[in-house]
Amino acid sequence: MRVNQVDDSLVLHTDYYILNMMYTYWKKGINKRRAVFEAYFRKNPFNNGYSIFAGLEQAVNYLQNLHFSDSDIDYLRQKGEFDEGFLQYLKQMTFSCDVRAAVEGDLVFANEPIMQVEGPLDQCSLVETALLSILNYQILIATKASRIKNVAGDDTLMEFGSRRAQDLDAGIWGARAAYIAGFDSTSNVRAGKLFGIPITGTHAHALVQFYQNDYEAFMAYAQTHHDCTFLVDTYDTLKSGVPNAIRVADELGDKINFRGVRIDSGDMAYISKRVREKLDAAGYPEAQIAASNDLDEDKIQSLKMQEAKIDVWGVGTHLITGYGQPALGAVYKLVAIEDDAGNMLDTLKLSSNVEKISTPGEKQVWRITNSNKQDKSEGDYITLKDEDPNALDELYMFHPQYTYISKTISNFKARPVLQKIFENGKLVYQLPDLQTIRSYCRANLDSLWDEYKRILNPQDYPVDLSQRLYDHKIKYIERVHQMVAQLGNDD
Amino acid sequence: MRVNQVDDSLVLHTDYYILNMMYTYWKKGINKRRAVFEAYFRKNPFNNGYSIFAGLEQAVNYLQNLHFSDSDIDYLRQKGEFDEGFLQYLKQMTFSCDVRAAVEGDLVFANEPIMQVEGPLDQCSLVETALLSILNYQILIATKASRIKNVAGDDTLMEFGSRRAQDLDAGIWGARAAYIAGFDSTSNVRAGKLFGIPITGTHAHALVQFYQNDYEAFMAYAQTHHDCTFLVDTYDTLKSGVPNAIRVADELGDKINFRGVRIDSGDMAYISKRVREKLDAAGYPEAQIAASNDLDEDKIQSLKMQEAKIDVWGVGTHLITGYGQPALGAVYKLVAIEDDAGNMLDTLKLSSNVEKISTPGEKQVWRITNSNKQDKSEGDYITLKDEDPNALDELYMFHPQYTYISKTISNFKARPVLQKIFENGKLVYQLPDLQTIRSYCRANLDSLWDEYKRILNPQDYPVDLSQRLYDHKIKYIERVHQMVAQLGNDD
Repeated sequence: MRVNQVDDSLVLHTDYYILNMMYTYWKKGINKRRAVFEAYFRKNPFNNGYSIFAGLEQAVNYLQNLHFSDSDIDYLRQKGEFDEGFLQYLKQMTFSCDVRAAVEGDLVFANEPIMQVEGPLDQCSLVETALLSILNYQILIATKASRIKNVAGDDTLMEFGSRRAQDLDAGIWGARAAYIAGFDSTSNVRAGKLFGIPITGTHAHALVQFYQNDYEAFMAYAQTHHDCTFLVDTYDTLKSGVPNAIRVADELGDKINFRGVRIDSGDMAYISKRVREKLDAAGYPEAQIAASNDLDEDKIQSLKMQEAKIDVWGVGTHLITGYGQPALGAVYKLVAIEDDAGNMLDTLKLSSNVEKISTPGEKQVWRITNSNKQDKSEGDYITLKDEDPNALDELYMFHPQYTYISKTISNFKARPVLQKIFENGKLVYQLPDLQTIRSYCRANLDSLWDEYKRILNPQDYPVDLSQRLYDHKIKYIERVHQMVAQLGNDD
Repeated sequence: MRVNQVDDSLVLHTDYYILNMMYTYWKKGINKRRAVFEAYFRKNPFNNGYSIFAGLEQAVNYLQNLHFSDSDIDYLRQKGEFDEGFLQYLKQMTFSCDVRAAVEGDLVFANEPIMQVEGPLDQCSLVETALLSILNYQILIATKASRIKNVAGDDTLMEFGSRRAQDLDAGIWGARAAYIAGFDSTSNVRAGKLFGIPITGTHAHALVQFYQNDYEAFMAYAQTHHDCTFLVDTYDTLKSGVPNAIRVADELGDKINFRGVRIDSGDMAYISKRVREKLDAAGYPEAQIAASNDLDEDKIQSLKMQEAKIDVWGVGTHLITGYGQPALGAVYKLVAIEDDAGNMLDTLKLSSNVEKISTPGEKQVWRITNSNKQDKSEGDYITLKDEDPNALDELYMFHPQYTYISKTISNFKARPVLQKIFENGKLVYQLPDLQTIRSYCRANLDSLWDEYKRILNPQDYPVDLSQRLYDHKIKYIERVHQMVAQLGNDD
């Protein structure tokens, strides 16, 4: 196969302009200048009140295996645009950056750094595309899953999206992100094998079509499996599917664990109530009703408002693609760079789109909790790297655009959100197991007031800048304005 | 790394219910019954008038490498739900199915088979999830790209989406699908290496931020590259970016190929016109203006209506995620199965959702062109496998729901859309190179009337059933109704 003829290293999973810039850096001898890049996004997805950080494990995998293979170099050589010296330089490049990031299962918010990469300018640049693709996707799906979990409450949630996932990687990493955010299982067996996620699923319509008959199909399944959830809508849910499921359960009794039925089409509110009646009347009050069919948080909420009798939700397409907003839009911006004299200099990207203006300088994000208020979050507080709000007696927080919105908090705790992941290219962070990440996510959500967690029109969670960082940003914007004015180009 | 500790074969990229059904088939001794599954989707994405088939090359890769590794078997064993005999059976399984499919670059439409898998029931079942994920994604992106191409006309189109792609696989396969459908290049270097797609890109804001100055940044780039497109919006497009791009072009003259500038923010309609004036006034009428910033077919159309002076479009997020409709929703249904006596029996899936009713039996899709009408397509005509419309003098075509909408065509040609890809598990189709696929796509689009190609409210393209197939479907629906009625369950 064409694709398998060469090794498929991921180091070229980068935008070509990055290699072209790396070449300029190398030719100009500035490739090893120390740089700091920060990844952040500008809006929580789905108009949600928060986002859930995920993707770190895949990002770590990627960074740990970052090197140019012979075939990568051959490919670049035949472009004819790079010196051989540059190609040899790439060939021996080994990742030596520091990486700080939020950890999986933590909450993150718009307009705060979620990952920092610090090191040689060229290496920091190289990793932008792949890191963004990984983080953008997994944060998106974890956040979508969390919205669904917020609506489903204690009901069981099954991730069913693989067949609609945007190619194969998305299927497994999306399943993992959903599990972190509170889903209970996935249907993807590979995700189960790779990540240890519980896998679920019994049978599809094809089994019933084979037997051309619900009864025989359910019986065949029940004779070969102990746990049985029968899919009842192949021909007619109420007239054939459910009565035959009950018939098989009656006939086999204790030989099977009749867990219930699944409905995949039709008016879920009406049908689920009728199915519930039939199961109860037949003496199966414990049998559960599972539903699947293009579900999302809005449909689940609507079905619950209608008192649909559904205990288990299988969510596929809308979860795994982040339907409604299929891209998070995180960016990765240079915030500081070593100057000719070896000093670190902060940098800014201005823009006519005001929301595209970056905040200069290397930062830390602090999650502020209030001991007087059940240790719930008061907001996030972004500082320059050398500030520590824990040194303060009280904290003055103000909105970074509407600065007259402010509050002063005493009895607060400030927890740093960004943690050390790599130092000089070495992994210094112990990747937690998936159960730990999932519990950590739950605990973080518990620290958030419900007002931030409703799925429609949540309250704005404060993401504020320290006074120093705010002044710093204003100063840099002013400086760029002056620089542009001095050019004297009228327009 | 946890993920790398085990081999990562793709055979478990399947829904768990499929393995559970395979186990039932094996225990019941019906696993080798001959079956036919067909993949199809129910609606062209984005309300488009057609879809473009893509994904076959990755599907072929997947099918050619399909086997259970030791670690796959170990994982299944520790579930404790399968007999050792079944696990050993899986271990020695080799793919032996026939596969027929549309070929990449061909047009496909809703409610017609786009791929058929025929062979042992269990093997046909196993591949559903991965095949659907692959086809769903690549058809979606090729179709989105084609819509953008329809609007952009002869302008250059660059695929810029990798950082927003739903994980890494999507980045490269999406780039390939876009190229098939008429994009001119991708920014993803790995996609360039793996597939031979032309790669494009010069520099990002980071280069300008490093120099804190457009002039020095552009000069550094120009001194290290021959082809130069300068990104001009880091600080101020009109006052700094464009004047400095011109200054560098003036100073370096023939030493560089000044291809133009790229704008990534602001009012593209207004700014592009002002930039055009400046470039023209400076004596660079050939310098092109490239634009990027959350573009899609609607924004490009709007900008063209406003006579924006943009020659080159960089399209990222909206293309690579299929924004607006991020899932195609193709399904994979059993249409025929060998019965106890060894005869093939057609099968149906009924549903209370009328659009979820399948069409029984193994089929062929014929593209009907009319020699009296410039060989343009008259529609698609679906038959049972043993029918050949070329044997007819004239063709009677009627709408499969509104049967009174009909037409009769003489002087037609009927081309079969589904081609043989695998026979008995052996690849019998020569995968074309990507340029051939791209040209084929262009030729297919040329055979379609413009009315089907407009991006808003296209005319409905006929996808009709032959009389025999229509009667067959009605007979099967009737048969199921009778079967359900005979159960005598009132509801």
